[in-house]
Amino acid sequence: MERENLRALLRSVQEGETDPDEALSALSGPAFIDTPNARVDLQRAVRHGIPEVIFAPGKTPAQVVEVAKALREAGQSVLATRLSPEQVDALEAAFDDVGHDALARLAWLGPEPVRQGKGTIAVVAAGTSDLPVAREALGVAERFGNDVSLLADVGVAGIHRLLASSDTLVAARVVIAVAGMEGALPSVVGGLVDKPVIAVPTSVGYGAAFGGLAALLGMLTSCASNVTVVNIDNGFGAAYVATLINRLP
Amino acid sequence: MERENLRALLRSVQEGETDPDEALSALSGPAFIDTPNARVDLQRAVRHGIPEVIFAPGKTPAQVVEVAKALREAGQSVLATRLSPEQVDALEAAFDDVGHDALARLAWLGPEPVRQGKGTIAVVAAGTSDLPVAREALGVAERFGNDVSLLADVGVAGIHRLLASSDTLVAARVVIAVAGMEGALPSVVGGLVDKPVIAVPTSVGYGAAFGGLAALLGMLTSCASNVTVVNIDNGFGAAYVATLINRLP
Amino acid sequence: MERENLRALLRSVQEGETDPDEALSALSGPAFIDTPNARVDLQRAVRHGIPEVIFAPGKTPAQVVEVAKALREAGQSVLATRLSPEQVDALEAAFDDVGHDALARLAWLGPEPVRQGKGTIAVVAAGTSDLPVAREALGVAERFGNDVSLLADVGVAGIHRLLASSDTLVAARVVIAVAGMEGALPSVVGGLVDKPVIAVPTSVGYGAAFGGLAALLGMLTSCASNVTVVNIDNGFGAAYVATLINRLP
Amino acid sequence: MERENLRALLRSVQEGETDPDEALSALSGPAFIDTPNARVDLQRAVRHGIPEVIFAPGKTPAQVVEVAKALREAGQSVLATRLSPEQVDALEAAFDDVGHDALARLAWLGPEPVRQGKGTIAVVAAGTSDLPVAREALGVAERFGNDVSLLADVGVAGIHRLLASSDTLVAARVVIAVAGMEGALPSVVGGLVDKPVIAVPTSVGYGAAFGGLAALLGMLTSCASNVTVVNIDNGFGAAYVATLINRLP
Amino acid sequence: MERENLRALLRSVQEGETDPDEALSALSGPAFIDTPNARVDLQRAVRHGIPEVIFAPGKTPAQVVEVAKALREAGQSVLATRLSPEQVDALEAAFDDVGHDALARLAWLGPEPVRQGKGTIAVVAAGTSDLPVAREALGVAERFGNDVSLLADVGVAGIHRLLASSDTLVAARVVIAVAGMEGALPSVVGGLVDKPVIAVPTSVGYGAAFGGLAALLGMLTSCASNVTVVNIDNGFGAAYVATLINRLP
Amino acid sequence: MERENLRALLRSVQEGETDPDEALSALSGPAFIDTPNARVDLQRAVRHGIPEVIFAPGKTPAQVVEVAKALREAGQSVLATRLSPEQVDALEAAFDDVGHDALARLAWLGPEPVRQGKGTIAVVAAGTSDLPVAREALGVAERFGNDVSLLADVGVAGIHRLLASSDTLVAARVVIAVAGMEGALPSVVGGLVDKPVIAVPTSVGYGAAFGGLAALLGMLTSCASNVTVVNIDNGFGAAYVATLINRLP
Amino acid sequence: MERENLRALLRSVQEGETDPDEALSALSGPAFIDTPNARVDLQRAVRHGIPEVIFAPGKTPAQVVEVAKALREAGQSVLATRLSPEQVDALEAAFDDVGHDALARLAWLGPEPVRQGKGTIAVVAAGTSDLPVAREALGVAERFGNDVSLLADVGVAGIHRLLASSDTLVAARVVIAVAGMEGALPSVVGGLVDKPVIAVPTSVGYGAAFGGLAALLGMLTSCASNVTVVNIDNGFGAAYVATLINRLP
Amino acid sequence: MERENLRALLRSVQEGETDPDEALSALSGPAFIDTPNARVDLQRAVRHGIPEVIFAPGKTPAQVVEVAKALREAGQSVLATRLSPEQVDALEAAFDDVGHDALARLAWLGPEPVRQGKGTIAVVAAGTSDLPVAREALGVAERFGNDVSLLADVGVAGIHRLLASSDTLVAARVVIAVAGMEGALPSVVGGLVDKPVIAVPTSVGYGAAFGGLAALLGMLTSCASNVTVVNIDNGFGAAYVATLINRLP
Repeated sequence: MERENLRALLRSVQEGETDPDEALSALSGPAFIDTPNARVDLQRAVRHGIPEVIFAPGKTPAQVVEVAKALREAGQSVLATRLSPEQVDALEAAFDDVGHDALARLAWLGPEPVRQGKGTIAVVAAGTSDLPVAREALGVAERFGNDVSLLADVGVAGIHRLLASSDTLVAARVVIAVAGMEGALPSVVGGLVDKPVIAVPTSVGYGAAFGGLAALLGMLTSCASNVTVVNIDNGFGAAYVATLINRLP
Repeated sequence: MERENLRALLRSVQEGETDPDEALSALSGPAFIDTPNARVDLQRAVRHGIPEVIFAPGKTPAQVVEVAKALREAGQSVLATRLSPEQVDALEAAFDDVGHDALARLAWLGPEPVRQGKGTIAVVAAGTSDLPVAREALGVAERFGNDVSLLADVGVAGIHRLLASSDTLVAARVVIAVAGMEGALPSVVGGLVDKPVIAVPTSVGYGAAFGGLAALLGMLTSCASNVTVVNIDNGFGAAYVATLINRLP
Repeated sequence: MERENLRALLRSVQEGETDPDEALSALSGPAFIDTPNARVDLQRAVRHGIPEVIFAPGKTPAQVVEVAKALREAGQSVLATRLSPEQVDALEAAFDDVGHDALARLAWLGPEPVRQGKGTIAVVAAGTSDLPVAREALGVAERFGNDVSLLADVGVAGIHRLLASSDTLVAARVVIAVAGMEGALPSVVGGLVDKPVIAVPTSVGYGAAFGGLAALLGMLTSCASNVTVVNIDNGFGAAYVATLINRLP
Repeated sequence: MERENLRALLRSVQEGETDPDEALSALSGPAFIDTPNARVDLQRAVRHGIPEVIFAPGKTPAQVVEVAKALREAGQSVLATRLSPEQVDALEAAFDDVGHDALARLAWLGPEPVRQGKGTIAVVAAGTSDLPVAREALGVAERFGNDVSLLADVGVAGIHRLLASSDTLVAARVVIAVAGMEGALPSVVGGLVDKPVIAVPTSVGYGAAFGGLAALLGMLTSCASNVTVVNIDNGFGAAYVATLINRLP
Repeated sequence: MERENLRALLRSVQEGETDPDEALSALSGPAFIDTPNARVDLQRAVRHGIPEVIFAPGKTPAQVVEVAKALREAGQSVLATRLSPEQVDALEAAFDDVGHDALARLAWLGPEPVRQGKGTIAVVAAGTSDLPVAREALGVAERFGNDVSLLADVGVAGIHRLLASSDTLVAARVVIAVAGMEGALPSVVGGLVDKPVIAVPTSVGYGAAFGGLAALLGMLTSCASNVTVVNIDNGFGAAYVATLINRLP
Repeated sequence: MERENLRALLRSVQEGETDPDEALSALSGPAFIDTPNARVDLQRAVRHGIPEVIFAPGKTPAQVVEVAKALREAGQSVLATRLSPEQVDALEAAFDDVGHDALARLAWLGPEPVRQGKGTIAVVAAGTSDLPVAREALGVAERFGNDVSLLADVGVAGIHRLLASSDTLVAARVVIAVAGMEGALPSVVGGLVDKPVIAVPTSVGYGAAFGGLAALLGMLTSCASNVTVVNIDNGFGAAYVATLINRLP
Repeated sequence: MERENLRALLRSVQEGETDPDEALSALSGPAFIDTPNARVDLQRAVRHGIPEVIFAPGKTPAQVVEVAKALREAGQSVLATRLSPEQVDALEAAFDDVGHDALARLAWLGPEPVRQGKGTIAVVAAGTSDLPVAREALGVAERFGNDVSLLADVGVAGIHRLLASSDTLVAARVVIAVAGMEGALPSVVGGLVDKPVIAVPTSVGYGAAFGGLAALLGMLTSCASNVTVVNIDNGFGAAYVATLINRLP
Repeated sequence: MERENLRALLRSVQEGETDPDEALSALSGPAFIDTPNARVDLQRAVRHGIPEVIFAPGKTPAQVVEVAKALREAGQSVLATRLSPEQVDALEAAFDDVGHDALARLAWLGPEPVRQGKGTIAVVAAGTSDLPVAREALGVAERFGNDVSLLADVGVAGIHRLLASSDTLVAARVVIAVAGMEGALPSVVGGLVDKPVIAVPTSVGYGAAFGGLAALLGMLTSCASNVTVVNIDNGFGAAYVATLINRLP
């Protein structure tokens, strides 16, 4: 049961619409379901306000479906990241209402998320090659109930394109800046806004990019003070933290 | 002129208490002062809500004093980080009202900051050796007008000490977790709260700590999704971002 | 001939049940058998108390079978690690009584091992992705005659799950802690028990995990003093040392 | 109060020699003393069987003395590691009965430790330059109540010297092998004994030794299965784990 | 003898003002002078158009003076880089006409250089801490006979300051971009001009800057195609190549 | 529209041959075309003098064709780098006049480029394995309108082969030196010419070559002062900068 | 023409058996043959005493055959290293007399080599996984005309096996020591002999072996002074140098 | 007693000039002397033909003298490397006949060494900064009884200087090539001679030289097959191996 559902339930009890005993049984469902291959946390949504998300790598298509079923049966919405095409196929074979963003490698089940954030999360990506990670961040933030905006292909070597969109950045409550290669985008973005900027290095680039290391080090040593960093290609993590920030009352 | 002063000025104009021309001359002071060794940004406080801060390394004691005087003359409060004892002595010789935290290597001039944040920033440090960085974060956050709390010496090898203080963590609006060596503290803290956790690796440790690299990598690969990371020993940067988050309306 | 068999033989001589000359010929078997592709140590069990184990990578399925046959013909039990499915198939085609743990990539031949340890070896794993390595450690320890216990999916970002199982840890004579990503689990476990903790970093994780480097450095710089470390993914080595410790009189 | 003292106290209560109330007040001393610069854990000896040890780097001589006094006043023995000459001088000025090993950079206060281990801990060092770390391991193990033996200057390039001493190694319950440069010693030692070998890489060497990295990697990839590794130069940690192993009943 | 002098000499011969035999003896001076500590190349100026430059580190003050004298006696101008204050003092004690830039750690002897370049070399520096390297590049380029311009303190986190000066960049024939920390400046500059940009990473920064590695990797993976890179802190090398480019006919 | 075309157009207007309104409509074409997968910059040729180039990795064959069509429809020539055989096939299926260099992984469409450089760009390659990168540099430079020359298989371990061709090097206006393994070629070449040398490390080599790192570090620390460096395998970037240098008036 | 053939030719001229003009035409063959894909050095055997060797990686099977034909037509023997099975098949299809060692990935054409060395080259390998590299060294040394001996599977964790064969080592004129993982073998071998030891690190091992880096660093920092090192897996290079040493008069 | 002395002694016995009993007592001196700080190997000269050498770093001046006295009293010549000025002063105060090369940081006692090699060892150094290491190699080789030659300041950026001296290289029996920065010298030298080349990387250079790493990697990946490598700055090791090679009969 998700936090918004929980809040509705409790209000319903408060207003006499729901019998406390009914509420009790709704709330006293199991905390975990142990599937053969994983322990699925069913009350994470209650505890953290964000339901458990399926990280697909290392799971067989059948295992992904198995966890999705467990979550859905517990009344939770489902979100899966880093899906292979085979895993997506398995989900679509098992469920009728799979939402899917192929570039972002995301899929989800369930109704449109309730808008919970107070502002907009802007995702800005340096190059077209960074789009899979940027779209992962965007899609996850959207499924977590945030208003989102995307600025793509605004690398620092064409600074005017970025500046032309600075209104979008300034209007955001928190910015996610995604870049590979030299990873300079968060520094420039950080100088344009006075909001938190979450930098996501990507593994895009060759040679001295060293799989994202160049971008990672560049972001950690950014001359802009409002930049924090997550792991290479970790669009999900950036969206997660941005969601927490956006929900702050 | 700081943003709060600016707001007061503008309200005063709005309410007819100040003549627009007077306000104009107050606002039309120079944007920068070029001292012989640095360009000091005098309107940063207006643009970003946080005044320019003096990063002391690489400056002579005389240069630190010089920049401090320029800021003060422009009506700004002064905060300096990573001060050597000689730099502190020079500040104390030049000004009457220097505040100073020797362990944190911070000094400041000017009145108590106006409280601007909406909640508390909790700083949690793994070991006593991490205290200089933790206290830098704490002191900077305080000078930026935040309510702060400090949990020290609560490393993960004595997990009960950390758990005993989890109320403090849960009560915070944003948490700064400071740790050297294996840098495991943010992962544990991240599991205890559903707020943003800003992780600061420190250069504490020897051998395979590699000057903070072990802690840095550990924090970037944290199994907790609500953790973002700043540069090694960058207590200032963590406090800066935490301040932005804490000020979000 | 394994050490327990040897001890039985010697006691039998001592008690007059076996003629010394017979014992001599039993003991005077060859020390090594040179198969076409490897020299198989047949007296390792006598010298070290633990028989030679087949490390499968780099061997063809036929070579794995060949070595297994040589060991078995010398009266030894057989244990093979890091088996590919093809290698397992070859073993099952060649022998009737193959035991097999697919997740752990282990297979074995021969009777149930004699219990030789004095206490229990507890294996604790941070995430489900760490299970193959944890199960390798578990299975090897079991085949070496130890009582074992397994705690899975008890990462430090959900510290209460680990604490709920601390009785199992405290009851163990030696603990093997397996974790990828930031590798923080051994530090927390080390603080909970006053027994030796053998830390196994895994190559689980992406980006700044750098194939297990982050976990490795984290474990080497652990703030818990009772932690020692083995190579990345080396569940076998951890079980080997834990066995030696558990057999100490 | 140390564990052995505690055991004596409890036996004394059991046998009617001590009044339970007296015992209570003895046991109800504070768990921690907060000195101005550190929180000193006074019941670690009871909880872990090994008292808190002062890690001297980063502390002023006065702080080292301060912590030593707090421990002594709580009835505990004192052991300090990695002491500078100035810190030793301060201890000797403050206490009458300082024991000191300059090469090992150790000092201690209090009576001879009670022998608690079941066997001997052998410390073996590759070169004379590795002696400070080896002697740290040796001295710490001794202060923790173990019987110890030392083999020095038995590097693998003169393998006969090591083999000539193999009786000492075989007789030990656990071996600590200390080596810098290529760090090959633990591999050879591991092949000679069937006991746990704790490898300590040292920062001895230049150029491609990279401050101990060569030795560390060499030990982690040892072809001997009974080797585990601690941090570079961490003689203390090796002695700590060896003590735990040696005390196993 | 420098190239310009040589050209004058040859023209003088051509026009009958100088006797070929005289020219011959002027030209037949030694190619090298072997001082006790170095072989000084006296015809480098003729061969490469740029005289030998004294790289001061590792030389005693007396050796610096010794080489300077050898060059001057051969009729060459003198330029020395990376001078310590002691080396500068020694030069000033030995010669009357020492030019000196303390921040750039440069000194020189001899007349104003002849202007030889076809355009201007613009040097642009990210932060005040990068100024020593930027000024080295500037001063060397100036002594090599180029028109130069300097833009300081125009880091990418305050992009408007850089854009405000883009005329200067666009007017240059070649740009040297100097930056530490994340080293993003050359990428932005490279997008603003269609001239060659020589990027100089500096060792400015701490933690994950790793002594200039972050900036170096960032520059090598720049998303701007007109960027090439020299070694960390190598302002001299950047000026050398920029001079060659600026002299191209 | 490319710069040379633009110049012709403007001259035509100047000379009354073209009506300004016609010219206006020619010039007022769109700056970008947004294809479904990328934003194609159509005025880059006007702004930088070099048209946009298609970097093929990460694009499907269909996407490569799509961008090529957009460029061609805008009247631009087309150049694509790092093409897979499948991408080349797709181009050849879609267009009649595809030029192609399989070893260099290049393809292009459009008429022979107008010669624009003032001199020759010499490309020199150490070994036959470096040829793909060297040929990429060569082919790109040629398509950008430069006269080019190639010296192949002139590694430094056979120095006489290189010296035998030094006339070609000395005659060039700028040299591109391509080498893997130890990457020593640019240092030797840099000593032979007094022109800018652009060094391209390649990923050729095994073991301690570490994917081009050895060559990269070697080139960055070259003892020749006229060497600058681009990313590993970046033949395109070297050709781009060499073109800018060669076009300098 | 190989050096031994050359010597025979010259002697034949000296003794009047061959007409100088005939010899001239034999000697005046081309120095190089440019095949479409490589320049083949035909006089390397004369200049260096060792003919050109085909390094197969990166060549198509057809290219390997092409170079082999060029060498053979020039009267040279042929040796190819690092052959894939496909490349071997192509050679065997093209020539009747291909010699082949599949484990070593070597093939050769031509008569048995003339014995030229003065002593024996001993190749010693730590584990069975190191055999491909050891056999490459062995086979190359053999084809270069050396007497060779091989000690396999004598790792340092079973030191007695190595010591039992020390006679073979002591009898050699030069020793090649091949080892992966911790790479300790050369240190032990170096202590047993007073001849040059050429150490070959292999990429055998996982985790902290880092593809041979651990072994490489270990060998470079060997405590034995008679050890030099070649690149990871470079059995060929070790054999080459050993051959030069063995031929020294 | 050194090997040459030993040979003389044995010949003297053979020829009846020395009584076997006298020889016995000369030979039956102790194998080791244990000084307070080190075990000095007195028969190394007999076993390896090269006496023990004092590696000075980490020893006090008094300890250096102590070991020197022990060696001399055992009738051995003395050689010490990497001496600080203080250590040299102590030796000169203790002995009358100290030979000393300050640049090489070497000192020695005893008569001129007996010439034992069969040819010349050539030492070639890239730059003047590499001279300390090159002179260490030169001096050690000389004290070990070799004929030596030195080529200094012949870096690859001035290739003609090196080629002008190629006769010296070709005449040598073994070459030691010393270089920092990009470490390209051994590759060029390796192409000029068909003798073994021992490459010594030095820690000379800054930035991306990374303390000798660039040179080390460059040498390990040399395109010349006759190059082997020793540790960074290890001039001693190079001379040691060159001596063994030069002594081969």
